[in-house]
Amino acid sequence: MATDIFSHSWLSGLFADDELADCLGASASLQHMLAVEAAYARALGATGVIDSKIAEEAAELIEAVQPDPAVLKTGTGKDGVVVPALVQELKSALPDHLHAAIHSGLTSQDVIDTSLVLALKRVCEIMASRLRMLSDALDELIKNQGANKLQGRTRMQAAKLITVADRLQAWRQPLAAHLQRLEELSPRLLVIQLGGAVGNRAAMGENANAIADFVANALNIGNTPENWHARRDNIAEFSGWLSLVTGTLGKMGQDITLMAQQGIDEIVLRQAGKSSAMPHKRNPVTAELLITLARFNATQLSGMHHAMVHEQERSGSAWTLEWMILPQVIMASGCALNTALRVVDSIEQIGQIDA
Amino acid sequence: MATDIFSHSWLSGLFADDELADCLGASASLQHMLAVEAAYARALGATGVIDSKIAEEAAELIEAVQPDPAVLKTGTGKDGVVVPALVQELKSALPDHLHAAIHSGLTSQDVIDTSLVLALKRVCEIMASRLRMLSDALDELIKNQGANKLQGRTRMQAAKLITVADRLQAWRQPLAAHLQRLEELSPRLLVIQLGGAVGNRAAMGENANAIADFVANALNIGNTPENWHARRDNIAEFSGWLSLVTGTLGKMGQDITLMAQQGIDEIVLRQAGKSSAMPHKRNPVTAELLITLARFNATQLSGMHHAMVHEQERSGSAWTLEWMILPQVIMASGCALNTALRVVDSIEQIGQIDA
Amino acid sequence: MATDIFSHSWLSGLFADDELADCLGASASLQHMLAVEAAYARALGATGVIDSKIAEEAAELIEAVQPDPAVLKTGTGKDGVVVPALVQELKSALPDHLHAAIHSGLTSQDVIDTSLVLALKRVCEIMASRLRMLSDALDELIKNQGANKLQGRTRMQAAKLITVADRLQAWRQPLAAHLQRLEELSPRLLVIQLGGAVGNRAAMGENANAIADFVANALNIGNTPENWHARRDNIAEFSGWLSLVTGTLGKMGQDITLMAQQGIDEIVLRQAGKSSAMPHKRNPVTAELLITLARFNATQLSGMHHAMVHEQERSGSAWTLEWMILPQVIMASGCALNTALRVVDSIEQIGQIDA
Amino acid sequence: MATDIFSHSWLSGLFADDELADCLGASASLQHMLAVEAAYARALGATGVIDSKIAEEAAELIEAVQPDPAVLKTGTGKDGVVVPALVQELKSALPDHLHAAIHSGLTSQDVIDTSLVLALKRVCEIMASRLRMLSDALDELIKNQGANKLQGRTRMQAAKLITVADRLQAWRQPLAAHLQRLEELSPRLLVIQLGGAVGNRAAMGENANAIADFVANALNIGNTPENWHARRDNIAEFSGWLSLVTGTLGKMGQDITLMAQQGIDEIVLRQAGKSSAMPHKRNPVTAELLITLARFNATQLSGMHHAMVHEQERSGSAWTLEWMILPQVIMASGCALNTALRVVDSIEQIGQIDA
Repeated sequence: MATDIFSHSWLSGLFADDELADCLGASASLQHMLAVEAAYARALGATGVIDSKIAEEAAELIEAVQPDPAVLKTGTGKDGVVVPALVQELKSALPDHLHAAIHSGLTSQDVIDTSLVLALKRVCEIMASRLRMLSDALDELIKNQGANKLQGRTRMQAAKLITVADRLQAWRQPLAAHLQRLEELSPRLLVIQLGGAVGNRAAMGENANAIADFVANALNIGNTPENWHARRDNIAEFSGWLSLVTGTLGKMGQDITLMAQQGIDEIVLRQAGKSSAMPHKRNPVTAELLITLARFNATQLSGMHHAMVHEQERSGSAWTLEWMILPQVIMASGCALNTALRVVDSIEQIGQIDA
Repeated sequence: MATDIFSHSWLSGLFADDELADCLGASASLQHMLAVEAAYARALGATGVIDSKIAEEAAELIEAVQPDPAVLKTGTGKDGVVVPALVQELKSALPDHLHAAIHSGLTSQDVIDTSLVLALKRVCEIMASRLRMLSDALDELIKNQGANKLQGRTRMQAAKLITVADRLQAWRQPLAAHLQRLEELSPRLLVIQLGGAVGNRAAMGENANAIADFVANALNIGNTPENWHARRDNIAEFSGWLSLVTGTLGKMGQDITLMAQQGIDEIVLRQAGKSSAMPHKRNPVTAELLITLARFNATQLSGMHHAMVHEQERSGSAWTLEWMILPQVIMASGCALNTALRVVDSIEQIGQIDA
Repeated sequence: MATDIFSHSWLSGLFADDELADCLGASASLQHMLAVEAAYARALGATGVIDSKIAEEAAELIEAVQPDPAVLKTGTGKDGVVVPALVQELKSALPDHLHAAIHSGLTSQDVIDTSLVLALKRVCEIMASRLRMLSDALDELIKNQGANKLQGRTRMQAAKLITVADRLQAWRQPLAAHLQRLEELSPRLLVIQLGGAVGNRAAMGENANAIADFVANALNIGNTPENWHARRDNIAEFSGWLSLVTGTLGKMGQDITLMAQQGIDEIVLRQAGKSSAMPHKRNPVTAELLITLARFNATQLSGMHHAMVHEQERSGSAWTLEWMILPQVIMASGCALNTALRVVDSIEQIGQIDA
Repeated sequence: MATDIFSHSWLSGLFADDELADCLGASASLQHMLAVEAAYARALGATGVIDSKIAEEAAELIEAVQPDPAVLKTGTGKDGVVVPALVQELKSALPDHLHAAIHSGLTSQDVIDTSLVLALKRVCEIMASRLRMLSDALDELIKNQGANKLQGRTRMQAAKLITVADRLQAWRQPLAAHLQRLEELSPRLLVIQLGGAVGNRAAMGENANAIADFVANALNIGNTPENWHARRDNIAEFSGWLSLVTGTLGKMGQDITLMAQQGIDEIVLRQAGKSSAMPHKRNPVTAELLITLARFNATQLSGMHHAMVHEQERSGSAWTLEWMILPQVIMASGCALNTALRVVDSIEQIGQIDA
């Protein structure tokens, strides 16, 4: 039992993904929010809304602010979102003459959603890189052991003989499709959210689009004239993509656990888990974990689609539901890819060598 | 209470979608399966596996077979899939000298999955057409009433004034994204499944790829060298797309029910539902239904992702789970698009005219 | 592909459950609704709200009314619920002097929810009966083959030898718990819903509780002073119970499919499914179906809990979501129990006879 | 974005529940596991399996062991479960002559599941206590403001006037039902799991039941002759109960957010959230959070029911899925009850005073 398996004292041995945790942790989130506020301050300067020196001075100070965690926590508990407290902290930290550069025309969701995109950009890179590594590892396995014979099985019953390569294609081919999908959805996902209080950029005046251009550029993400604060199809789509990835890996895990059964004996894994009661056991722990993570994400995805039903210009309840679920779906997906890499690497023998 | 709300004696008044029901019903499924078997028979002839006259003679007879429903039902109950009984019916209906043209080298899943694709092709066309109609209807509404003032609301609280157009963009913009997504996923979805008993086309011999080309061409769907019988990312992806569509429409429905509240009074609907107890009521039934359908699909999507965890070359349990869920997700999505069209058409007044 | 697998032309061979379909079909629903309206009319007479002869005369006519299906369907499409149209049909069918006995003080949800309870009462009886039969069948199996040896397996790996009885207890023991749970929840579930327009029985005046007593008595279900039109914990609880049942049976199905693998060979099933491509196959179709149904219900249950979030005195959207899901959960559960009975009956040999 | 909202640097301002976190954290889990191992050692002594002084000496040392976290983490990553590493740490810490008292006849799942029950016992007490407090708070609110008039609303439309008490009964009455349900399920949930390697207590020999009696007694939880390591209906049932609770609270939150709308103005909340863009805003953050938590649990519950499909004597993948989900469902439920208490406490005015 644990409230966070990804960072839990010992369960993290199974679930931890330090690389992704770094993208999603509070520290990174804070840096991303400050980066958004700073880029926005500079944008106000660059577009002539405020003096550009004031803007730069403010931006540099914003980037260096270290808000009081207790203030942020208390504020979040009261306001439902951290940004009002964060802005208060910025105002406390910066001299009065710079206050016009702070968050003026922005709203909480602009900061949080754009920060999220900064995190997701890195997440996408990591995922893509791992997908390619896994695809390569499977290609290598197919090259080395793909010609081995295997009992094809349908409906869990012996069907006809196949080759190892035949089975492994159902593990490897979807990875290419997932990379293709990621490329297609990225332009919809990795874009700025900049709408102001009610999403129409009214508070930014006639410079709104120039401001957005500047901010997107400064943060190195895409720009869009569209506001997505209350339409979350991009976020739900990305969650679905993550669950497609873990679904593929779950199928791979399922196959491996079945091949590893005594009596079937179609795979030999170098690494395997011990039992506390039976020293002879070699449990296919990593393969099982892939199934778990697939079912976890399949479950969570439902919540992300429920979170599309926003009310009006912003739903507190739907948005907060994303916060509870999306980070876990990402972590589970990253863990699954790492685990799949470990599993494939641990395959000593698969199928029967054609003698 | 009803076992099928889409065809139920009176609930169909809310849920029926005759156009989609025609695509998905037993009659269409049977025609699709016969079309697959006939195209395959002709492919055997065209590639020289069997005599081409035999092939054509068989194909024509196959297309005209009317299998005994009782035999199909009993067979499905026993075999878990209708195809063995269907093939038996084909063999009973065709003279012996044509039997070599029947299902030779195919497996049940080839027939059912390719039939499914034939249905999905038409489903995608219908969905795309309705999405465009809805997008046009919203454009028209924005043109006519978009300049009206509206109280922007965030977290269900009055925020700043916006225009009707501001709110409606969150309804309309995602529709364009959905059309774009559909275009991207279609080449992954609308392709033949042709693998034979264990998916590797071994039973089709060296003519396998030529056979596949012929069949895909004859059925007017895409070809692919990949077998997807045990990797269902294409099906899960499409399900996710359907749920993205209903999520967008659910948000629209949610907004309308909120605008229609007495005390808010931001929308006037021409059509509204009666109450059995309160004659004065004008219930926003169609808008509510959009929320229902969004939550229905958000729920179902989870099952479609669980169904990705196939065992080996074919999972009876995972595949059957698709059969239980996918048709309903499609029907709910079609119903939602039709309902959204009705809702938009019924909007008499939205927001306040700027006087 | 099919819009209703439970009544589909051939898929019903797997999924049909005529006994439950009779409880849940449109015809039974209509009879239940008329029974509620009639009992209510008589209650108005019995409590002196209207003349008791008028009441009886009306009640008898109500019970015999055959509403026009087209009117009910059109009305449902417009009003979101069938009752306004049904009441209109009653008023058309009965002479004017009896109209005071029709639906006076009731609301749509009273009629539909109480009708639902009439259906659920029979559903509970059927479920309980099948649970007892399955429990007996497993006891018999334990008696006959429970002493057979079996390779105990944990994490899908050979652990220590056990007996067949050891494994079968995990199938049989939960059934007793399910019967116990059903007994506990029934008094919360099988009760009248009688609240009138906004649920507080105001329209029934001072006779409200006497009317409720009479109606509950007449319909042979429990009475309750509580209104549950907008609190659905009883319905969600029952849905959870159904999914607990199918979860147990899914575990049983999973075990059987694993035991039936070639190379494991721990079970021999008399009935098994054919393959269209491989005549030698004996697919454990019924066992697989148990897994499918468990995962189906596990998926649906989520929607039933989302449907607890009603707005105010009645949520059209949440209530309609129940209509889409609950009947299917019931059908899937009934199908699972019947299927489990077939599976157990088909077990010829399980485990190794201790020679 | 955050990988654990319950302990996150600032999101914990919304989600933290220190009392429950203490029950579920790694430190408590470790103490519970050591308590199980110690009680078991003493049971071996008390039943004469080993010398009772040896047993007591070992038990006392076991209770004081402080395992190396790094060893536990590495072990969990390899074995999929912490217990093998924990047992290794116990053996390293205790002198050889006490090793017979360590984990002899137990299996990992006995230790983890029984530890879980120790945590759940405290969780149930906390939940019950909060349910009673909330019920009392609502009674008080009904007493003070229940007579106020309120516009009854059905399908989000004005229906008839009701009293505040009428609406609040749909918040309060289910709480009593939840307490009743908890009482009913507790004897099924709060029991020992003691089965040994494959669940049949074979390794404990003829003293098995006496050992179980002793351990249950020592740990102050129920005993049961049944093994539930591979049947999880008790855990799934409890998860369902938690989601019933949050469903009720979600309905309450939904009502409050609707009442708090400008134009509706039926409730005044003392505490409300600030906006970073609009100083006038008073967002009903706590009420919104109740909706979020209801939808979160409705989503998670599905996964807990999928986790019922165990393979054979223990499923690594299904069991691990519980670890990922159950703690969060508990935390979300605890947070929801605390939040509901805050919400009710913050209600200054509800409905219109009947003047």
